[in-house]
Formats: sequence, C-alpha cells, structure tokens
Amino acid sequence: MTLTIVPIAGVPEIQPGDELAELLADAAAAQDTPLVDGDCIVVTQKIVSKAEGRLVELDADDPGARRRLIEGESTRILRRRGELIISETRHGFVCANAGIDLSNVPDGIAALLPVDSDRSARHVRDAIRARRCVDVAVIISDTFGRPWRLGLTDVAIGVAGFAAIVDLRGTPDATGRELQVTEVAVADEVAGAAELVMGKSSGIPAAIVRGLDPTWRREGSAQDLVRPANEDLFR
Amino acid sequence: MTLTIVPIAGVPEIQPGDELAELLADAAAAQDTPLVDGDCIVVTQKIVSKAEGRLVELDADDPGARRRLIEGESTRILRRRGELIISETRHGFVCANAGIDLSNVPDGIAALLPVDSDRSARHVRDAIRARRCVDVAVIISDTFGRPWRLGLTDVAIGVAGFAAIVDLRGTPDATGRELQVTEVAVADEVAGAAELVMGKSSGIPAAIVRGLDPTWRREGSAQDLVRPANEDLFR
Repeated sequence: MTLTIVPIAGVPEIQPGDELAELLADAAAAQDTPLVDGDCIVVTQKIVSKAEGRLVELDADDPGARRRLIEGESTRILRRRGELIISETRHGFVCANAGIDLSNVPDGIAALLPVDSDRSARHVRDAIRARRCVDVAVIISDTFGRPWRLGLTDVAIGVAGFAAIVDLRGTPDATGRELQVTEVAVADEVAGAAELVMGKSSGIPAAIVRGLDPTWRREGSAQDLVRPANEDLFR
Repeated sequence: MTLTIVPIAGVPEIQPGDELAELLADAAAAQDTPLVDGDCIVVTQKIVSKAEGRLVELDADDPGARRRLIEGESTRILRRRGELIISETRHGFVCANAGIDLSNVPDGIAALLPVDSDRSARHVRDAIRARRCVDVAVIISDTFGRPWRLGLTDVAIGVAGFAAIVDLRGTPDATGRELQVTEVAVADEVAGAAELVMGKSSGIPAAIVRGLDPTWRREGSAQDLVRPANEDLFR
C-alpha cells in the first residue's frame, strides 16, 4: 500500500461564498491530478474560514480587541503568557488563541475557525460528490502547537467520510500477543502528512492523499479526537 | 512536489546485534523500491530497540516490577493514573510509561527506548551510506499520546540528516504579511505520515518517504523537538 500526497496548486484567492468543492476539483484537474473515488482531500482551515465568511475586523490599535476576540471564541482559558492565550474552543479543541488566525488574511482582518468544522468537511465532500460525481473523504486541517514538544503540526479539525481514530485494540500483533493501546489518530496523521507538501509560505491550501487504507472510509468526526476534559490529565 | 510513502515489508524478525541498515536496504530492494539518494527512511523504535538489545525481562507476576522499570527510565514523573504513568525520559520526551513497550516483543520482555535515539538514527544513516552508497535521512519513530486530543500519533524520537523543525518565521506569506508562528515540526509529521502505511498489526517496521523538500536535508536532532521545561506551560 503506497501512499501518494499531491499538493493542489493554482487555487484562486478565496472569497466569502466561494464553493471550495468546485475550485479544488478544478484546480486538481488543471494540474492533471483529477480527484478520483477514494481520495482524501485535506483542506486548510484558512480557506474554509474565508469561504464561509468567518472573517472579522480587528483594530490593530486597540490592544484589548485581540484579547476580547479570543475570549469570545473560547469556552475555557487554560493558560495565559504575555499575548499568548491557550484556550478551549466551542468545538472542544485546545489551541493557541482559540485558533484565530491573522496571517494570510488582509491586514486588520482575523479569520475565525469554522463554526462547525465537521459540517464544513461534510459540505465539501457532499458538493464534490454532487457536482463532480467523485466520492472523496475530506479533512479540514489546522496548525496547532502542543505541550512538551516544540514546533507546530497540522491536525484535523473537521472530518467527513473518514475515520478520525482507528481502533486496533485487541487486534493480535505479529507475535500473537494482544495489543494494548492502539487507538491511532489517523486523521491527524493525514493532516500532518498533507502539510508536508503545502508549506506555510507557498500558498498551497489543499492536498490529495491517495492510497489510504480503504477500511478507514466511514462516517467520522473530528469530535472523536476531542479528549473529554474529565479524562484529561492536563486540563 | 509529490510525496510518496512506501512501506518496507519483508523485514525479518530483528535480533540483538542485527544491522538494520542492511536489512532495510535489502528488504526495500527486494520489493522493487530500492533506497535512493534523498529518501527519508522512517524506522519504528521497536526494531531499533531490538537491534540494540534494549530488552529487559519483566516478571509479569510482580506488580511492582513494571512500575520500578518505568521509574528507572524516567527523570520526572508528571502524572499517575492507575497503572498509567506519564513521565519524562532522559531524552526529554514526555510520554506514557517512559516509552517502554510490551507489545510485539516476546512475553515477559519489555523494550526500552534507545539510549540515544539520535545516535541510533545516525548509525542507520551512516551504515546505509557506507554499505549501500545511498545518502538517506533517517527518522526513528515512536507512538505517543498527547493531552487534549484522543488517539496516538507517531512522532520522531531520533533524527539524522533531516531537519526536526523547519523555521519559516519571517518568511512573507502569500499576502506579503510577515508570518507570525511557523516553526513546523516536519520530522514529527513525517513520522506520522509513515505510520499511515505501517499500521500497528501488520508488522511493517519501516517506510520510505520520498519527495520531501530537499532544503530540509541538514543535520537535525530530535532534541530540537524537546520543549524546555521552563518554557512549557503544561509541565
């Protein structure tokens, strides 16, 4: 099983109201890698938020505006250090600044996370099926930090048609011994893999991941990745 | 830039003293995907620990033996819950049970992390160059949990010939605005991507990642991924 990851280049600057499904399918076809059944399309949060109009003006001269915006998008503040706020969003994601993004949007405009990123993923998936007759999985990715380890990685914040987590518990391993802990967050690994062909500065907002285990195609949800607060030793 | 990830199957059961470089290069060649210059080889910790003889007997009837073993491999205990211990290893990695692994090793034997996993990666890289005249990067991967998000992902615990983190800070983004936070943990993303073709129960211990950005080839170290404790808001 060989995995292939193809960046989708040539996607135009996204405007509120744009239909990402068509723009992504057309851009993939234009570079001679048309979408095919079984592909998993990873789409960065930034263009999803733009297409959904999740943009708000932010007065750069008002030092409290940024903080209030973050607090308004958070349900729980975990830590503050200087301007950095680690908080939990309505989706249950724990990340810096409630996932609000200031890069790659015009000055003075902040991009908020999609209201329901699973729904955003489902919309792209359904629209590609309806408009292009291709059955793909869709993962919305965003760039999060993490405790203990330096550097950011892309993770899944929205999932459609794909397992967020694959549970291999109880599957005998190669020596016949029962596996102990094998809930693998495959949607996060796919999101991170796609990031490797996008790069932050190259302006590539999506990628095709081809060759994933077909048994992972199922109704998934990024909510499956949210560790309940009462089971979390670090919240 | 298309990325291809090829599992390396057919690797024999590893014994202490085995030269992984030869076994991996031979297995790759035998499946008609010989290693080539510029490849990044991801090798799971388990076979590295086996080849290095990092195996200890563990008396399953002694409930304290497991705990003592974990504590002996830890420099700091972060949390305990039941049998689970979250601790920091000598390498600075924070993970469950000091990274000690009981699956896929014969009953009663535990596999410890390599003593110096960067050195392990360098050894495989150097030996592939010396014995097969191929210049590859090597990442040793292991499967870690994380706070806040459910499911495990593979991360890099050893790196050779590859950047652990790519620092894009200050690179202008597509709109000309200066990027704010863009230290991407590419080695972790590569480790996670490789896991997608290995799977916990299929017994595939390594993968070839081909097509990565050539500017990421450099002297790297998994130590670059360790967030210093005094900069960590969650330790």
